[in-house]
Amino acid sequence: MRLSVRRGTTLLLCVFGVYTAARALYHALLCQSKLVHNHRVSILVKGSNQTQYHYNQDSPMVFVGGVPRSGTTLMRAMLDAHPLIRCGEETRVIPRLLGLRQGWKRQGEERQSLEDEDVTQEMLDAATTAFLLEIIARHGEPAQVLCNKDPFTLKSSIYLSNIFPNSKFILMLRDGRASVHSMISRRVTIAGFDLSSYRDCLAKWNHAIESMLFQCTLVGPKRCLTVRYENLVLQPRTMMMKVLQFLDVPWHEGVLHHELAIGQPGGVSLSRIERSTDQVIKPVNLEALTRWVGHIPRDVLEDMKNIAPMLSRLGYDPSANPPDYGQPDPQVINNTERVLRGDFKPPASLKRLSQEKMLKASSTRG
Amino acid sequence: MRLSVRRGTTLLLCVFGVYTAARALYHALLCQSKLVHNHRVSILVKGSNQTQYHYNQDSPMVFVGGVPRSGTTLMRAMLDAHPLIRCGEETRVIPRLLGLRQGWKRQGEERQSLEDEDVTQEMLDAATTAFLLEIIARHGEPAQVLCNKDPFTLKSSIYLSNIFPNSKFILMLRDGRASVHSMISRRVTIAGFDLSSYRDCLAKWNHAIESMLFQCTLVGPKRCLTVRYENLVLQPRTMMMKVLQFLDVPWHEGVLHHELAIGQPGGVSLSRIERSTDQVIKPVNLEALTRWVGHIPRDVLEDMKNIAPMLSRLGYDPSANPPDYGQPDPQVINNTERVLRGDFKPPASLKRLSQEKMLKASSTRG
Repeated sequence: MRLSVRRGTTLLLCVFGVYTAARALYHALLCQSKLVHNHRVSILVKGSNQTQYHYNQDSPMVFVGGVPRSGTTLMRAMLDAHPLIRCGEETRVIPRLLGLRQGWKRQGEERQSLEDEDVTQEMLDAATTAFLLEIIARHGEPAQVLCNKDPFTLKSSIYLSNIFPNSKFILMLRDGRASVHSMISRRVTIAGFDLSSYRDCLAKWNHAIESMLFQCTLVGPKRCLTVRYENLVLQPRTMMMKVLQFLDVPWHEGVLHHELAIGQPGGVSLSRIERSTDQVIKPVNLEALTRWVGHIPRDVLEDMKNIAPMLSRLGYDPSANPPDYGQPDPQVINNTERVLRGDFKPPASLKRLSQEKMLKASSTRG
Repeated sequence: MRLSVRRGTTLLLCVFGVYTAARALYHALLCQSKLVHNHRVSILVKGSNQTQYHYNQDSPMVFVGGVPRSGTTLMRAMLDAHPLIRCGEETRVIPRLLGLRQGWKRQGEERQSLEDEDVTQEMLDAATTAFLLEIIARHGEPAQVLCNKDPFTLKSSIYLSNIFPNSKFILMLRDGRASVHSMISRRVTIAGFDLSSYRDCLAKWNHAIESMLFQCTLVGPKRCLTVRYENLVLQPRTMMMKVLQFLDVPWHEGVLHHELAIGQPGGVSLSRIERSTDQVIKPVNLEALTRWVGHIPRDVLEDMKNIAPMLSRLGYDPSANPPDYGQPDPQVINNTERVLRGDFKPPASLKRLSQEKMLKASSTRG
């Protein structure tokens, strides 16, 4: 049967009508399912390039942490240099909310009271997730992989791994003697650490890293990776390849040159008040590796393996001052020479506060 | 031109196709706009009758509060008896989060530090809104109008009125002498109130109600309503008509018989641990109206207008023991007689704890 023009047109119109109906119906159902899905929080953020990023509790997320002064800022700065990842500065509020949340979780009178008021743990999880996602998603330029660095959040790794099912964790490890020397010499106030005592700070370091490592182990190696600061500064390429592979993110050479991305769009945003800012404006270098040697009081040195048993558990010889941390890559040696030559000065926007802090800190720095 | 059956069918199919396409497209666009709208949190809750309730920060919401022991539980119980409103028990966590939030708002070092870390007040508002909405929306059966009662939240009325643009506030007022006698005689622990001293509690009551009234005044009469406990128990019909009109909710006789809705679906959910539970299981009555008379130490009575200037500002004569609060409705007199006869016993599920509390509380009750 030959088709007349008119019949053909009519047929085409019908086919088109049905096709459009089917497509629109499909999209409507898809859209509706997004609404009714158990995504409690659905956040839309517009990037500077007008791209829209859609985040929810299933979004991939990275939490970087550890005991302060263990290279957490360096790690997050290197990740920030990757175009697909954004960490940004510390939020300060996330650990506070997590602290509140843990208080409502602990078995006891408070938890019982909440249950008597019909406030369930599930409700508190929903609310906490919503709060955290809002902060993390909005705290800087959007990116495919959101990241957050508040050192002590890794004390809540298990909890975070449950409320954010696609989250991963990077726990920075460092020779406790170096971390403690850094906090004392730079006078970095950390709740619970008595900066007038190496002994006390080492004991607190020990307790904190033990707790965070425990959480990391329970979260499991697929989701929690430990990274040694010493390895990161000695062999950054090897370490970052490992980190990016762990995060399932393609390699990008920029992570080895984070100092070039400072203040750049999609790059590294630094805080004037954070205590490592004056260090991470420089390329990866060995300045801080063994600065602690010779500064720890004799009696503490002699008692080291009792004060800080985690040192040997982590592979740091408590009686070696210092241990042999490993061999540096040529690039890092080169960076260190440039840094020692004075090639890296803080940018104007960060300079003033850095200078004030440098003046305030006493003689030896770590 | 006459239409053949076949042509007619074809035509109908085309029309139907276009119509379906248009409808589905319309719904798809509507749905999409719901996603991209600035509703940061979009919560879907299923009611027991399978109805879906969709909440966001623009949802109508009621916050009930005041100084504890001012009839806040009675008010929320009466509202809970309305089929369109759900308050539920105290959450306890909402005031804690609001406290944390206010700490991050206060001008000073903390706020500056947050700004240096790029954590803006807007971000904190988004996160706080998300948290509160999750708790309020999930804390009990869903309803058209969500309501929350944590007495001290009315210290944050202005803040809440900003983050929830369609929220309203009910501030319970009561003769401070009655509130204070109630907390002391029932030993109701309230942070900052020294239960061994009428003088201290009255001064604290004064400060708290002044602050909450100030907030209420600034929020404005369209959004914040003050309700006197005395008026509520003496003329409940008049007062509840005023309250429901203020809330823009149709009248429902059930609000005058909240005691019949206890533990009912869509009714009044009571907490075993809340201190007014043994009172609100009874119908609105006059038992607690003037119980305070004769219990306040003489020296405090003589100094009353200096200790608690808010008394006269609120219209309570500080030298009258008691003032004339007004005339009771016949229904309330009837209720009170039934209560005094012993007609209302706590239900089994609430009984045990109530009895324990009654045994613990000392002689006179208020």
